[in-house]
Formats: sequence, structure tokens, C-alpha cells
Amino acid sequence: MEITKLIRPASIAVVGATERPKTFGCTASLQALKSSVKDRVYLVNPTRDELHGQKVYKDLADLPEIPDCVVVATPRDTILPILEQAARLGAGSAVVYASGFSEEHSEEGDALEARMVEVSKEYSFPILGPNCAGLLNNEDNISLWGLGTDFDMNTRVGGVAVVAQSGYIAQNLINTDYFNISYAVSTGNGNATMLEDFLKYVVDDDRVSVVAVYLEGLKDASKFADALGAAARKKKPVVILKSGKSSKGAKAAASHTGNLAGSSAAYEAAFKKFGAISVDSIEEFISTSQMFSVLKGNFLKPATFAGLNLSGGENTLCADLSEKHGVSLPDFAPETITEIEKYIPAFATASNPLDGTTALFSKLENIVSVIRAAESDPAIGGIIFGANIGEKVTGGPPKTIVDAVLAAIESGCSKPVFLVGSQESSKDQEIRRVVEAAGVPLTSCGETGYTSLGKLTEFMNFDPDSSSLRLAAPDAPLPEGSVALSESESKREMAVYGLPVPTQVVVKDTDELAEVAAKMNFPLVLKIDSPDILHKTDAGGVKLGINSAEEAGVAYGEILASCKAYAPDARVNGILVQEMAPKATEIIIGVSNDAQFGPMLLAGLGGVFVEVFKDVSLCPCPVTKAEAIGMLKNLKAYKLLAGYRGSAPADIDALADLMVAVSDYAAEHRNELKELDLNPVFVYDEGKGVKVVDALVVKAGIGGKE
Amino acid sequence: MEITKLIRPASIAVVGATERPKTFGCTASLQALKSSVKDRVYLVNPTRDELHGQKVYKDLADLPEIPDCVVVATPRDTILPILEQAARLGAGSAVVYASGFSEEHSEEGDALEARMVEVSKEYSFPILGPNCAGLLNNEDNISLWGLGTDFDMNTRVGGVAVVAQSGYIAQNLINTDYFNISYAVSTGNGNATMLEDFLKYVVDDDRVSVVAVYLEGLKDASKFADALGAAARKKKPVVILKSGKSSKGAKAAASHTGNLAGSSAAYEAAFKKFGAISVDSIEEFISTSQMFSVLKGNFLKPATFAGLNLSGGENTLCADLSEKHGVSLPDFAPETITEIEKYIPAFATASNPLDGTTALFSKLENIVSVIRAAESDPAIGGIIFGANIGEKVTGGPPKTIVDAVLAAIESGCSKPVFLVGSQESSKDQEIRRVVEAAGVPLTSCGETGYTSLGKLTEFMNFDPDSSSLRLAAPDAPLPEGSVALSESESKREMAVYGLPVPTQVVVKDTDELAEVAAKMNFPLVLKIDSPDILHKTDAGGVKLGINSAEEAGVAYGEILASCKAYAPDARVNGILVQEMAPKATEIIIGVSNDAQFGPMLLAGLGGVFVEVFKDVSLCPCPVTKAEAIGMLKNLKAYKLLAGYRGSAPADIDALADLMVAVSDYAAEHRNELKELDLNPVFVYDEGKGVKVVDALVVKAGIGGKE
Repeated sequence: MEITKLIRPASIAVVGATERPKTFGCTASLQALKSSVKDRVYLVNPTRDELHGQKVYKDLADLPEIPDCVVVATPRDTILPILEQAARLGAGSAVVYASGFSEEHSEEGDALEARMVEVSKEYSFPILGPNCAGLLNNEDNISLWGLGTDFDMNTRVGGVAVVAQSGYIAQNLINTDYFNISYAVSTGNGNATMLEDFLKYVVDDDRVSVVAVYLEGLKDASKFADALGAAARKKKPVVILKSGKSSKGAKAAASHTGNLAGSSAAYEAAFKKFGAISVDSIEEFISTSQMFSVLKGNFLKPATFAGLNLSGGENTLCADLSEKHGVSLPDFAPETITEIEKYIPAFATASNPLDGTTALFSKLENIVSVIRAAESDPAIGGIIFGANIGEKVTGGPPKTIVDAVLAAIESGCSKPVFLVGSQESSKDQEIRRVVEAAGVPLTSCGETGYTSLGKLTEFMNFDPDSSSLRLAAPDAPLPEGSVALSESESKREMAVYGLPVPTQVVVKDTDELAEVAAKMNFPLVLKIDSPDILHKTDAGGVKLGINSAEEAGVAYGEILASCKAYAPDARVNGILVQEMAPKATEIIIGVSNDAQFGPMLLAGLGGVFVEVFKDVSLCPCPVTKAEAIGMLKNLKAYKLLAGYRGSAPADIDALADLMVAVSDYAAEHRNELKELDLNPVFVYDEGKGVKVVDALVVKAGIGGKE
Repeated sequence: MEITKLIRPASIAVVGATERPKTFGCTASLQALKSSVKDRVYLVNPTRDELHGQKVYKDLADLPEIPDCVVVATPRDTILPILEQAARLGAGSAVVYASGFSEEHSEEGDALEARMVEVSKEYSFPILGPNCAGLLNNEDNISLWGLGTDFDMNTRVGGVAVVAQSGYIAQNLINTDYFNISYAVSTGNGNATMLEDFLKYVVDDDRVSVVAVYLEGLKDASKFADALGAAARKKKPVVILKSGKSSKGAKAAASHTGNLAGSSAAYEAAFKKFGAISVDSIEEFISTSQMFSVLKGNFLKPATFAGLNLSGGENTLCADLSEKHGVSLPDFAPETITEIEKYIPAFATASNPLDGTTALFSKLENIVSVIRAAESDPAIGGIIFGANIGEKVTGGPPKTIVDAVLAAIESGCSKPVFLVGSQESSKDQEIRRVVEAAGVPLTSCGETGYTSLGKLTEFMNFDPDSSSLRLAAPDAPLPEGSVALSESESKREMAVYGLPVPTQVVVKDTDELAEVAAKMNFPLVLKIDSPDILHKTDAGGVKLGINSAEEAGVAYGEILASCKAYAPDARVNGILVQEMAPKATEIIIGVSNDAQFGPMLLAGLGGVFVEVFKDVSLCPCPVTKAEAIGMLKNLKAYKLLAGYRGSAPADIDALADLMVAVSDYAAEHRNELKELDLNPVFVYDEGKGVKVVDALVVKAGIGGKE
């Protein structure tokens, strides 16, 4: 749905306008009248003639023009007729602040919200809310904000677009001067017009340098993926604070905006696929968004840093925090060391990070020289300063550092410089404003600052060309129920997609068995083939290492007897006979079809590694080969694949090809596949390939059991 | 060494007093003259008669009394004669600020510092420094601080004792009003009087409610352990920021104060053993210290919280951050729910954490009632408020919350209440002062705040009675070189300590073998027994599963031939014959003798769990049985021991007994044992015991090879 008239209306009607302080009707009127389109703002109230010094209209139908946006600031039960009227009149959009809709989980609330969504669809009429704080467009000076704020639309322009599923958090971000603001949208219940719609809009807007999303849950993962994909291709950072990660948090989110939090692992995997930046707390959210908004695309190349510090203690902490948060501090080149040594005392060491000592930091021109020396080192992408900038400190006052950084930039330093502050430094808004104007982010809190630098490093290292940048979400919810394919059927489906499965035949009697066994290479494996027996080993349905036709005959009888006892009513296709694959490293490749993101590919080393250590990688399908290799490298157990303690490396290439084939299968079958489990896949030494030793495909629908 | 005269001198001489600003000689004079003992402060300078309005003495020998503390504020090369003179005169202590000693790694600097340590020892003369910022005793109003500060000794009394191996960090902590200060000591190189000495002093002082240690490396782990043990017994929190955890950080620390960072894992294990609180950054250090200083021992029982929040978004984040940081939010009792429901809107849910909604938070008396309801719940130990307290927020102003908390305390709420602030709230010193006076910690930053609450939880859950609260550090550095015992010798040593080892005999020829084998239960294992062949399998020195005397004879010959080829010069004791233990869960128990902390016990599941996943627990010896069980529970692989997927639980009790026996052995042999490796120990089902299948003891000294 086109939402420009909601985000950038040329005319606004406020229905339910009042002068009663601290009400939506009063605040929304005042905000609209502060907007750049104030001459085309119309207040509506049937019982008043004048409010806020403005003429008041009795009814929407009386306005001199059809408004682009109708702000509905009336109580819940009056809202639907107003929306219907507005839509019928041809108004362009609406905002609804009131709560009492689907977030209440009441029959009445649900019905009202369902009708609202219908109106929106029927008339292609975008509606922000209900249960929201409104929208602030600081790029075009338009406020549809419904809560008290003294935000001044002529300031803090050009920066972060905040899209939040919490009015409280959005309100906090605009009311405190953390960073410049392009947009702030509180999306409320977000069923008519979704968070995903606003996200796409601000990603597309080139005036926005970073998008900050507070997310409890998604409505439409495909729309979300479109927006994140567009951002990835533009290299525009999207910082996401996903809450509801814990079980109590998920419950809290559900009762807040009615969002199901979904699997936290699936969300994280989806963010990673699109190079979106996932943070854990409001502090990281603010610090990282602010950093990107100041950098404005002046990203580092390479994604490495020189750490310059004022004292030994600070320098040691800089090294520790950098390692902890994945911030790379490469060694300086010999020429850099020689150059830096000119400016530091003889007892100091010109290493990275650098303890410049107070001797260095008391001379501005020397600091500038050290910055320029570090900058000219090709191994260095950017420069981090200290952890206590802005403090009352011993020796060289921090003003020297600030002045030196500005002087270095003045003198032509083009690699980005970062001032990592302590808890206190963020208080000094004066310093912040000066350095930010020069493109220097001043992050608050050492630990938070280094976390943000780590996120920047990850963002820089993300290659959008390595990812498919799309999802294979089902077109509609999958049917109820599930139908399991037998092992042989499952493997046949896999074989069609080019997966290497062992030679296999299902036999119905011992004559067939003898005939088949005669043509195969021993040792063989015999297994029960039944869609109703999924735990074959538990049922006594598997015999390994069969070395002769005689042994095969005995095994045949034992399997049937044992399975009969285990599951008397199971449908049995026969006995699956296959050549036994030689032992190798065992990998589990799986797919589960996430209700939101569609099929998620899973990879892990077999057995306890997956079950006890939870050492698995997830990625939404479709996955590219680069993504598949990335998934394997993210496993702790990757060492075992890469050649552990002198053993030969495994055939990672063939395994990645198999993963891509599985992903293609899953993406094509996204509207029917529920689960897929290749457990184990045998991975042989490099160049020797892989083999799918067992397979289970479960499709949606009615028919299976166990 | 007794250091009271250094920390609490009744008289002070400042040698090298001057009026030249920003020099140690000037600052130290002014600081001393601000002290409570200002009438007994003597300035010494051979070239001046009066300074700072005071009479100046030409020489230490001229003073009207022998001073308790001599502050030496002169250049490096003049210092030793002054210290010698002071010590000879019978002065009680000294402070040396100058740098240029052992931290420079120069021959001259090392020699000067060695002499300083000699003087200190010879005269029992405590010396703070060199390369330090001095000492501030805010309990007795005495300042020996050498750097510029406007710290006012009449304020911020009663609180944190800062003991720091960085003058810069100590300076920052006193110059910024993070928390009240009892003491601040910058320990500099700390070879004469050590950080460990100051630590013990402040632990013993009951006016100190929390000790905050910035640590780069230890000089004397036993002294450190004594101090931490005393703190644990008193339940006095010691918060430690150990830097140099990363490899670059360790290098940085070494060039800062000459400290070897040591193994970060060993430090963490030692902190844990004593219940000391280890933090990762300055922010956590400040936030956690401040929290404890405000609580002043009003610890929670149980260590659980009710989370009360102002908005849905905040509430969701509260749940997530609590889970992430180990902060427990138990469900409310039914009566608590009934009570809380009286004060929240019908659509809100009375769960923990609680989204009180703005409706609750606009009525002070209702907030008070909810606090009291939560407090009366026996499952709740304390109350956390929000994550944005102190912000400009929608609806109920935060002042309402502050007032409500104060009113609740006034009305008798005795369980501790915590205000977890956002980035901004720490700026409001006014609110902080009011709530802190009522015993309510206001932590800065949500994430940092929840980290501190997690540390508090850990501290509360630490039981000093479960730990041995001591170390078994070697009395002197171990001799160079190492001597390995053969497997049979190693096992014999273990058997003496009660460890269950398989029946074993070393045979010298095949006749002996036949005789021995006849008396044993097959299957048997034969292994080469040689102190020179440690990798027996590589040498072809192991034969398993021998089922008859004949097989044993063949194996005997093969082992000898193979080992001869592998290591022609190896000394061979014979062939070790033992009954083969039935398979079981394989555990590795090891000891390595840390240069600082002495023997460290290690436990982990055999094979890749230790080597690839690094899933190991460490604890300094001696360990109690409770500590041994705690080590096992800390393993990710513990699930495999506890009974995984319906398998029987392993004999954890017997394994813990074995660990205690190994620890006792290691503690007794701390002056000779280098390493001990029981790999594997077979752990049988509950009640079935354990068996040491292989053992290797390596002692210090000359003699071994390979």
C-alpha cells in the first residue's frame, strides 16, 4: 500500500480536537499546527466553533478540501464510523491513537480492529495505529505525534529513522537528544499499515542514513525481507532491537502489542542473512544508531582500527574490550611505528593499541601527527580514541584531544575517527555537537561504545552479494496436520534434487531380498520402510553391517517381527535394503518451516553436539553456497570439519552444495514442507563427497501418524 | 607488613615540597595540608624557608618529630637516599610518586626498585609506589594524593574502597561523583608494599562497605587469597576489574606496570572460588560498586526480584535483560496477584515483570501499594523499577516513582528497591542523592544495571562455607625442568590417595606376563611402561581387549618392537598389564600448577569436548566436595553426566570424591607437582563408582625426556 499521504500529508484533519491538556485531541492539534502544512490543518469537533485560535469544523464532510491525513483523536467506540467516513470521502490516510483493540485480546477489541483492517484494504486507505503514539516526519516538518513533546522540528534534522512497536520508547528517543531524527513512527498494533510498510519507506528515503527498529514481532516477514534486502543493497544500516527474546519477554510482548515473539533464533538468523544489525539493549540501540547517523556512510576500509589511549590502564581495557567485541586492532606497519615513535616518550611502545602517555596527550600537534601516522597505515581503517574522553582527567585536558581530532580532520584526515566515551562523557553535549559536526561519533560508555564498534565491524564485513537477500516464506499458512514420508520415499525426493543417497531398494519378501542383495556390494543395511515408524532404531527396525545373503535373510525376519511388536498397526512398505556407507564425519542437515520466515536450513555436527551443546547454524532459505559455507564456519565444531589434529579436512565444498540443494528443495516446497531431517549426512575427506545416510521428509496435511 | 602508619599517619613529611603548580611536590603539600593532621605536616626543601605559608625544613633530620609518613616528591635519582634516611630515622612509611623504575624494564630502573624493596624489608618500612598517584583516606581525612584533584574530604564519606593499579583510573573515580569513597589507593608498581596489602587492610576496615579493585596482575596470590577469604567470611563484596584478559591487553598491562597478566582463566577461577565479583568494564565496575555501596549490606533474601515497569516495551526489555544477566523474576504468589490487580487497569496482567501501564504510574499511592504487595511475597527478595527512571516520559512523571519508592520505604518496606536507569538518568545527581540516602541504588544504563543485578545475584548465591577459601600456592617458584612418571608409577601415586585404579602389574618378561595374566580377569590391556614415552598410542605401546594368555604374549612382543622403533633410547620399566575397565562416560581430570595460584584442578568430558569446545571447569586447589560438584555443574556437558535422554545418571558423587582426592594430592605436592593428567577417568552409573584408566604425573626437576 502506498503510504506517502500518511507520512508526508499536504493537509491534515484532526477529528476530536480539544483544548483539554494532555489529551490526544489537544496534543495532536498543537503538533499538526506546528507542522510545515499548518495552513492546511483542519480541526474537527461538532460542539466547538474555535479551538487553539483556529476555526473548527463540525464534520469531516464540511472541510474545504479532502485531507491527505485524518488524525482520529476520539475514544475507541467512535473511531470506526469516522474512519469509514474518511475513507469514503477519499481522504488519503488516518492515524488512530486509542487503545482497546486487538492488544486487549477481547472479543470486542478484536472485532473493531478486524473492521479497521477491512476498511483499510477496501479503500486502499493506510491507517497508522491503533494503540500508537503517532508519527513525526522531521525531514518535511510534519508532526502527527499524539503525546506531549517539546521536540523542535527545525532541529536535529537528517539522521535516524525510528520505527518502533512501543510508543514509550519512540517518545523517549525523540524527547532526549541522543541523535538526529529523520522520522519517528510508533506503529502500535500495526495490522492495517504495518511496521514493515514504514520500514520500507524509510529505507527508500535517501535522507535517512540509518534506520532504528524496536521490534516485538513481525506481521509479514516477506515485506520485512524486501525492506531489509533493499537496505542491504544500498548499504544502509538497519539497527534492530528485537525484544521478547526470553520466555518471559515473549509473554510480555504478547500482552503488549499482541505480537507473538516467534523463535528468537529464527529472528537472529533472518537479521544476519540481510546484514541487519541486532542489538540487545536500549543503550546499544542508541549508541549504534547514533554512530551510524554521524558516520553518514563514511564507512571504514578495511574494518580495522588503531586504538589511541591516554593511560596504561585505559590502553589495557581498550585491548580487552576490542577483543571481546570483535574490534580488530592490527599491528602497525614498521613505517607507522617509526613515525609514531617520534612523538611518544622513549619508554612508551608504539604498538596498537597505543598508550600515548600523558606526555603525548599534552601536545596537540603531536596527537595530530600520531593520528595522521595511524591513518596513513594501509592496515588501519579508522581511529578509536580512548575510553574517558570528556572526563576531568590528569594531565592533558580532553579538550586537547578534541581539538587535535578536529585539527587532524581539518588537515585532511579522511578515515573516520571515533571518540569512545565513558559514562560521563555523553553528558557533555557541547563536545558532542562539535565533534559530530565534523563526522566524529562520540559514543557513550566504554563497553557500549566498543559493542557498537563491533557491530560496525560486522556490518562492514557483510557482503550483500554473498546472500540471496530473500525469503521463501509460505504463500499462506500451512495446512494442519502432518504426513511423514518413509525413509525410501524421503530419499527418492532428495535424489531428484541431486543429493547423493546410497543405492537403495525396497523389497517385499525374502525372494526379492535375495535377488537384490546379489546385485549389491556388501556390507548392507536393512531398515523397516514405513511412514508410521519414524524412530526406526527404537522399533528394532535397523540392522547394520550385514555381510552375506544369509545374514540378510535373518535380519529381514527379525526386523519384521520386532516392528510388528513395536507398532502392530503400522503400514509397512517393505524392507529397505541399501549399501552401507563407510563411516565418516556425521552432519545433521535439517529444515523446519517457520510460520513467519518459511523454511529455515539448519546445520550441525551429529549427536550431542546439536543436542547438548546446541551448536547449530540457522539460515532462512534460499541459501547461497556462500551462506552455506558461512553456516558451517559459524559452528564451534567447524574445527572438526576443517581438519582437526592432523586429520584430513572434510569435503566442505560437497557439503555446501548439498545444503544449497536442500535449500532449493525446501524453497520450492515451502507451501507443503513441514520438516526435513537428513541425519546423518556422512561427509568424507576433501574431494570424496558426501552421502545422505538417513532422510525424513514431513509434509503438511492429514494422513500420517506416530 | 603493618601499614597503618601509611594509611592513617598521624604526622606527614613532604620531601621536595614546592609551590610550582602541577608538580607532585606542590600537590602533595597542598593535599597533606588539607588533611585532618595538618598541624603535624612538615614540608622539606633544602633551598626554601617558607612554602604554602608554612615553615620549611632543610632536612628530614630537622623535623620536630619522626613522621609516620614521608612523602617523597623528588625526581627519581634522588629518591633512594631519602628513603634510606627516613627508614633509618625510624619514620613509619613512605610514598613515592616518580616513575622510571621497574615499569621501564631498564637495568637502572630495575636496580633502583630492587633497592627500594630491600630498604622496605630491612626496616619493615612500608612504601607506596613508585609510579603511583598516592593514597586518599577519606574516612580519617588524610590525603597523600599526588595528582591535582578538588576532591573534598568532608563529602562522600563511607562507601567504596578503591584499590587500583592505575593512577589514571583511581583519579577518575575520585574526581567524578559516582559513589561515596572510603579510600582510594593507586598502588603503582607495588613491589615494596603490594596491592594485596592494601586490599587486606580495607577488607578488615568495617567502615568500608565494598572494595573495588582495578587489577592488572598480582604479586602474591596467597596474600590476595587471604584478603579475599576474609572478605568472603564477612560477606563484604569485592568487585574486581581484571584487565589484560586479551592477548593484546596482557601485553599492554606488562608495559604499563610491569605486571604479567597471567592466565585469565586462572584469575577468573580464583575470583569465583572466593566469591569475588568479576566485571568486564569500567561501567560495570562503577555501577556494581555503587550498588553495593548504597545497599550497605542490606542484601536480598532470596536473591530474586519483582520487576515493575512503566510501559510494555520497557517491561519486555526488563524480562529479556533479566534472563540474559541471570536476574531471577519468579512468578508472584496468587495472593500477590490478587492484591496487585486492585491497582492496575483491567486489561493489564499482574505478572512478574509487571507492565504497570501509565495508569498505575500516575497514582503515587497505587505504586506504593504495588511495591508493598510485591515486598510481602515470600518468593521476592527485592524490587527493580523500570529502565527509564529519570527520563522525560509520557504520563506519570518519574518524580511520582521516586516519591512512591521513598513513601514505600517510609511506610516500612524493608526489602531493597533498585532503580535501574537509562543512559540519561545517571545525569540527575539530585534524584540520585535523594534515593541513595534512602538506601535505593540508582544504576546507570539499563544493560549495565541488569549486569550489576546479575552480579548481586551471584554474590548472594555464593556460600563461603562451600569453598575452602584458600589456595595451595607453591612456597617458592618450582625448579626448572620436568620429570614424567611412567603410567604405573603415576597410578601408584594416585592409589595412595585412595583413587580407584585398575589392578595393574608391570612385567619384565613373558614368563612373568603368563603368571600375572593367569591371576587376572580377561579382557586385559597391555601398555608400555616408560617415563620417556608419554604418547603411548602413537608409539604403538597400547593393546586393548586381550582375551587370552596367547593374545597377551603376542601383544607383549609387538609393543616392545614398536616402541623400540619409535623411541630407541627410551628407558622401559616393562609392560604394564591391567584388567580392562568396562566402557563408561569418559572424564578428564587434570591439574596444572599455576605459577601464581598453585595447582588448578581441571575437569571436562573427554575428547573433543575439552579440545574443541573448551568445555572445562577450573578451580584452584584445595577444592571441597561442594566445589568439585559445582565444577561439574558448570560444564555444558553436565547434562551428559546427569542422565541424558533417559540414560542412567553417572556416579557424580564418586567423581567428586575423586576430584577432592586429586586436589588433596596436588595441594600436598604443590612444591614439586607440575602437571597431573587423569585421561580418561571412567565414570559409571550412579553408585557404581569411577576408575582411573590412565594417569600421568609430571614433577618439576631434571631427569625426564620426550
